[in-house]
Amino acid sequence: MNISEVSFDERGLVPAVVQDARSKAVLTLAYMNKEALEKTLELKETVFYSRSRQELWHKGETSGNTQKVVSLHFDCDQDALLIQVIPSGPACHTGSYSCFYKSITDQTTDLKPDRFAILDELLHVLAE
Amino acid sequence: MNISEVSFDERGLVPAVVQDARSKAVLTLAYMNKEALEKTLELKETVFYSRSRQELWHKGETSGNTQKVVSLHFDCDQDALLIQVIPSGPACHTGSYSCFYKSITDQTTDLKPDRFAILDELLHVLAE
Repeated sequence: MNISEVSFDERGLVPAVVQDARSKAVLTLAYMNKEALEKTLELKETVFYSRSRQELWHKGETSGNTQKVVSLHFDCDQDALLIQVIPSGPACHTGSYSCFYKSITDQTTDLKPDRFAILDELLHVLAE
Repeated sequence: MNISEVSFDERGLVPAVVQDARSKAVLTLAYMNKEALEKTLELKETVFYSRSRQELWHKGETSGNTQKVVSLHFDCDQDALLIQVIPSGPACHTGSYSCFYKSITDQTTDLKPDRFAILDELLHVLAE
């Protein structure tokens, strides 16, 4: 799979789902342009395109909360990315582990590292 | 959290990350408009908006591969959804378990149910 095959939208962006490679929690949905994707592959850390600031955004460059890229996948129609990472700190600018901390349903899910995290670690080690 | 607080984009859409509630694999990135989100909450199964067909799309209505909604979260700026589901079959129209089966990196990840799936099941049971 070559990045030239990625379908960027009319803004030149592709959405990127960022997932913790160990806990499997979904951390963030961010966007990349071609340059951000190239930088991500080069640095092996996530680099996004900030739609509000209209510039490249190397996640954690100032906060230290970088995300080491473990794997990168495209979806079937090549217009979305899934990036598995090892985060150095919170993914969210609010300080939350994941950006998805607001629930619309009554049921809550394990979006934070929990007391079973050691089993996730075990899964990871076994899988290697 | 009320759905009236969701930030739909200029097309009236919000991206929805669909995750298997048990294996934690990311299955699909799809889009919802307000009506699709309301239908999803009503049916407790995923209903998306098809950008190509420009109509509501009740996932699995014809194939039987529905996705039972377990939880629904918004991100910090309310312009993305995370939906955890129990899928009845493959998420992808290609028949793949997840839409994210094309790798751009050399390393591959466990995006398919694997021999450690029983440990994921165990985690799920323990968490309940």
